[in-house]
Amino acid sequence: MIGIALMGAGRMARVHAKAIGAAGGRLVTVFDVAEAAATSLAGDTGASVSRSAEEALHHPDVAAVLVATSSNTHVDYIIQAVQAGKGVMCEKPLAPNLSEAQRCIQALGVRAGGVFLAFNRRFDSGHAALKKAIDAGEIGNLEQLTITSRDPCPPPLEYIPTSGGLFRDMMIHDFDMARWILGEEPVSIYSCGSCLVDPEIGRLGDIDTACVTMLTASGKQAVILNSRRAVYGYDQRIEAFGSAGMVISDNPKATGVRRYSSNAFGAPDRFRAFFLERYGDSYRIEIESFLRGLAEGKPPPVNANDGLQTAYLAEAAAASLRLGRAIELRTNCEATWHD
Amino acid sequence: MIGIALMGAGRMARVHAKAIGAAGGRLVTVFDVAEAAATSLAGDTGASVSRSAEEALHHPDVAAVLVATSSNTHVDYIIQAVQAGKGVMCEKPLAPNLSEAQRCIQALGVRAGGVFLAFNRRFDSGHAALKKAIDAGEIGNLEQLTITSRDPCPPPLEYIPTSGGLFRDMMIHDFDMARWILGEEPVSIYSCGSCLVDPEIGRLGDIDTACVTMLTASGKQAVILNSRRAVYGYDQRIEAFGSAGMVISDNPKATGVRRYSSNAFGAPDRFRAFFLERYGDSYRIEIESFLRGLAEGKPPPVNANDGLQTAYLAEAAAASLRLGRAIELRTNCEATWHD
Amino acid sequence: MIGIALMGAGRMARVHAKAIGAAGGRLVTVFDVAEAAATSLAGDTGASVSRSAEEALHHPDVAAVLVATSSNTHVDYIIQAVQAGKGVMCEKPLAPNLSEAQRCIQALGVRAGGVFLAFNRRFDSGHAALKKAIDAGEIGNLEQLTITSRDPCPPPLEYIPTSGGLFRDMMIHDFDMARWILGEEPVSIYSCGSCLVDPEIGRLGDIDTACVTMLTASGKQAVILNSRRAVYGYDQRIEAFGSAGMVISDNPKATGVRRYSSNAFGAPDRFRAFFLERYGDSYRIEIESFLRGLAEGKPPPVNANDGLQTAYLAEAAAASLRLGRAIELRTNCEATWHD
Amino acid sequence: MIGIALMGAGRMARVHAKAIGAAGGRLVTVFDVAEAAATSLAGDTGASVSRSAEEALHHPDVAAVLVATSSNTHVDYIIQAVQAGKGVMCEKPLAPNLSEAQRCIQALGVRAGGVFLAFNRRFDSGHAALKKAIDAGEIGNLEQLTITSRDPCPPPLEYIPTSGGLFRDMMIHDFDMARWILGEEPVSIYSCGSCLVDPEIGRLGDIDTACVTMLTASGKQAVILNSRRAVYGYDQRIEAFGSAGMVISDNPKATGVRRYSSNAFGAPDRFRAFFLERYGDSYRIEIESFLRGLAEGKPPPVNANDGLQTAYLAEAAAASLRLGRAIELRTNCEATWHD
Repeated sequence: MIGIALMGAGRMARVHAKAIGAAGGRLVTVFDVAEAAATSLAGDTGASVSRSAEEALHHPDVAAVLVATSSNTHVDYIIQAVQAGKGVMCEKPLAPNLSEAQRCIQALGVRAGGVFLAFNRRFDSGHAALKKAIDAGEIGNLEQLTITSRDPCPPPLEYIPTSGGLFRDMMIHDFDMARWILGEEPVSIYSCGSCLVDPEIGRLGDIDTACVTMLTASGKQAVILNSRRAVYGYDQRIEAFGSAGMVISDNPKATGVRRYSSNAFGAPDRFRAFFLERYGDSYRIEIESFLRGLAEGKPPPVNANDGLQTAYLAEAAAASLRLGRAIELRTNCEATWHD
Repeated sequence: MIGIALMGAGRMARVHAKAIGAAGGRLVTVFDVAEAAATSLAGDTGASVSRSAEEALHHPDVAAVLVATSSNTHVDYIIQAVQAGKGVMCEKPLAPNLSEAQRCIQALGVRAGGVFLAFNRRFDSGHAALKKAIDAGEIGNLEQLTITSRDPCPPPLEYIPTSGGLFRDMMIHDFDMARWILGEEPVSIYSCGSCLVDPEIGRLGDIDTACVTMLTASGKQAVILNSRRAVYGYDQRIEAFGSAGMVISDNPKATGVRRYSSNAFGAPDRFRAFFLERYGDSYRIEIESFLRGLAEGKPPPVNANDGLQTAYLAEAAAASLRLGRAIELRTNCEATWHD
Repeated sequence: MIGIALMGAGRMARVHAKAIGAAGGRLVTVFDVAEAAATSLAGDTGASVSRSAEEALHHPDVAAVLVATSSNTHVDYIIQAVQAGKGVMCEKPLAPNLSEAQRCIQALGVRAGGVFLAFNRRFDSGHAALKKAIDAGEIGNLEQLTITSRDPCPPPLEYIPTSGGLFRDMMIHDFDMARWILGEEPVSIYSCGSCLVDPEIGRLGDIDTACVTMLTASGKQAVILNSRRAVYGYDQRIEAFGSAGMVISDNPKATGVRRYSSNAFGAPDRFRAFFLERYGDSYRIEIESFLRGLAEGKPPPVNANDGLQTAYLAEAAAASLRLGRAIELRTNCEATWHD
Repeated sequence: MIGIALMGAGRMARVHAKAIGAAGGRLVTVFDVAEAAATSLAGDTGASVSRSAEEALHHPDVAAVLVATSSNTHVDYIIQAVQAGKGVMCEKPLAPNLSEAQRCIQALGVRAGGVFLAFNRRFDSGHAALKKAIDAGEIGNLEQLTITSRDPCPPPLEYIPTSGGLFRDMMIHDFDMARWILGEEPVSIYSCGSCLVDPEIGRLGDIDTACVTMLTASGKQAVILNSRRAVYGYDQRIEAFGSAGMVISDNPKATGVRRYSSNAFGAPDRFRAFFLERYGDSYRIEIESFLRGLAEGKPPPVNANDGLQTAYLAEAAAASLRLGRAIELRTNCEATWHD
């Protein structure tokens, strides 16, 4: 069984630790700069505590490293783990910004394709079924893609300044979904952004409501709708329209219960609460994919290069909003804009 | 264009008068024992008022008679109209009870098959699509049939004593649906009845909540659920289960609107209010079928014999409830029970 | 009863003639440059045939004029009918292009607000219920609006060159929906357009697949998705997302039938076929609104100024596509772009 | 942590062993008369193998016994485990027939209420939400209950003779659901049964299609529909209708995916395959309930008496079918019928 070192012991690290258990993986050691957090998580999982990143990365029982630290440390840990000859999985985003992502890809060279980047939504059963249907030709040629992604409520205000902004923090997932489903890179991007949920978010220089349009070379159109607040719950939908049909991955409901009363006429049950409930299974399936890939010597289905491309789209989306115009995109992730 | 005499000027007569207009039929004359009602309806439609039933039935411009009077007069008017050589359509029920229905059929003889009995639900687009799917073999052999039929609210209490009881008044429609969809006559029937909606209905000797089970010779099972009150609206559903699948005719909604809020998660719009909204189109389609049949010289799709069979099922259902046991059924509508 | 002159006897004129009948209106006379068409329609409806536009417009029994001719004649007939002192309803679009629409508004002056412009979708029960819910505050402040509008199949190729292009011909309806629901004018517009359905459409200088984004001064975002071909049917949806919820006007189904089989698991019935089935009732409700407004001396809910604003949006959308950039919009419909 | 002995190592025992793990329980030892099966399961779970039932039941680390052997051994193991002072959970049914169930209850006396009977469907999130809604008064007084329960395909023919028949083997779950939701015992029961799926099942003396009606003293009506084969999948629905509304627990879909094509118009994804997928979570939640009850010293929510009552209903249903009449029911489970 493949031994895993877990870098980080925060919220997402705990999600991954639990997923490792459910996937039948073996968590060997945990490292976190906050040693108390590492000790606590190690205690809950039976793993050891590493006193340094090096100790964890070079642990003799460790064949794979899962990086789930704060995003400004991702690149360094990825590079070190790759250099130590370990299999690597890294929580999204690859890097806090485009230049860091570019540094990562340059440092990794061809090995970038071997680093598993944890865009977990690819492993959601609904979204994966949509992708599979498209790949099987069910809708013919994809022509219009609409991704709706709304959080139940905004993050704490203190998180906003360090988040990198809505495009890098929240829409990054949708950029990955869009690229994955489109099957080709966009050639242009145009952003609308508003601050409608909380004016404080605007004062901190961010937006909370966004609509991004992308076009590919073959004429495919993609729209992403984001809001930091949907009072009805975590709204996660993908609609793919094509020459032979349409497939929608809609919000699964908490249960199959429907209600009828003097003011309800078959009202469905509520959405699953937030990402841990909505995408809970995806974390396990993702780890299973990672471990299976390592065992079979196969490259991961989503890798560090996807991290670079999504970072590029986020940066371009922000530039479009700032400059008030559509931005031309290059496949080499070169910035075509100048402020 | 076929000229029609309308017997009756009450609520259902007005429904039919409007349907005649929408179907492009020609209403020639109206008769009602309450002459003021006839005058009013005639005024609204441009028809003449007949001073007697005979005058209406023998009007020279009249080729067809639509009987929409109170049910205790149906049989006589049907017989007279047939004897006058007119095409006849009669609002359900054929007769207020089984013996009257039997008298009607005996008097008509072979001409019973030519009298159009207005079980309008057969002409509802949803129920008709279900029937068509079954006839086309979509669900293989029909095995279990469930008909749910609930009114939004009970009728006025003063109506109850003259209604003939829930089985004859309300479930009669569902008996017709069941026979039509089953495609064979039931061989046994068992009733459960309760008075749960309004104890006054019980004091008047009726029930308001019923569940009837029927079995056919080939083993098909049918269940009918009735209630005099559904707070969420007029609940009209048919579920047909078979060896190759299932088809459901569900309640259509008023519009395609869905609502999402902190306590709604895709809540559909309300049902159509009551039978005039729910089955509104069926009255027009029914008249069209009647007129087309007359024009083409073809027998009606539902006739007086269906009126006898449904009257028999209603009577047997009442007997089952009274006697507390299943009732064996005969195709000749012979009463097998004795109180 | 208000007497109506119908200008035009083509397909849409026939739709309106039928709606006039269903709404209880009185069609007095019909005019069409193709006299045979006028004669045929007059024969079917009992109206007279006018030999000239003037004869129709000045007919003594005519109090209202319904213009349903080809769109390049709309403006002149509107102006003449207004000058003749008649109530006027005009089929959309107001004019074949922006400059003609501007000429119309200038000629009408304040009377522009009295000309009923027949954007029939406003009278669809589903879309109207969505609008009513928003106006009632159900979703709080509207923040994101998504309108999906796809035809079942493209028009005949010979129609394309005279259509004015997708934005003026097809999306014009969606521009009206967007303005109506947003409740404020957009300040910017950005278009993506592709030719994916039929390359011949591209050779004729048009697109068949479009995605348009608009932003209002208060930060509301609106997206319109159009395609000339949806193999699953006429796809007409509106999604309005706001601070307190979301309301969707979804495609109503032909019936409430659902199917289950080895490859169907509650599959709903098909969509209503095309605009006449989907929006059939809206034509009648629209005429009723027009006639009621005339009777009560109230201004129409949608007027010639709406025709100008939608023409402006269509022109701006086309300019955005041509120039590859977002277009700034002015409330006075001034062109801010230069080719 | 409470140590558990697992009696049985067959299919259902494996389901429970997995659930124990997911619930955080500790499986100490496994016993099966087929020692190879016990060894295999013990190997997979880290438990020991007991050479005899006694060894398992008296294991010093064992505080609770989970009986998942063939049903004819349930009663003896339950009694032995209770006598050994262990907490006991037993897979349904309590016993292979009514007389064995009565023997069990008599032997247990007051301790019958302490034996957890594993009717897992009570722990399904959908069905539990329906029950909770009813208990919260959402539908007012329950009046009509409809339970539909259809397997995707019949069991192997060789299983039929030992199954006890459809009522004892399959409908037993639905009898438990009905009693639980009704909140009172039925006073009469009437069965229809047919052999429509496979004539071989009929030759073996069983039925494959059944419809059972029950009535309670207060007039509540309950219908259970069973079929051994539904080509569209495992069909598990509950509909509870009451004075203030209705709540339905419908089949959850595998994913939130919907399909549109020239012959699909929003077709939902398939059902979850069979009971392990549909009710998978319920096994874990059930074990959690069992362990929490033991830890807190609280009686189980479903106990051996429920096993007796359901056995009684199954026996009465079979008698009704055999005798062709409704059967009166007694709360003391006395047989009122004589063949």
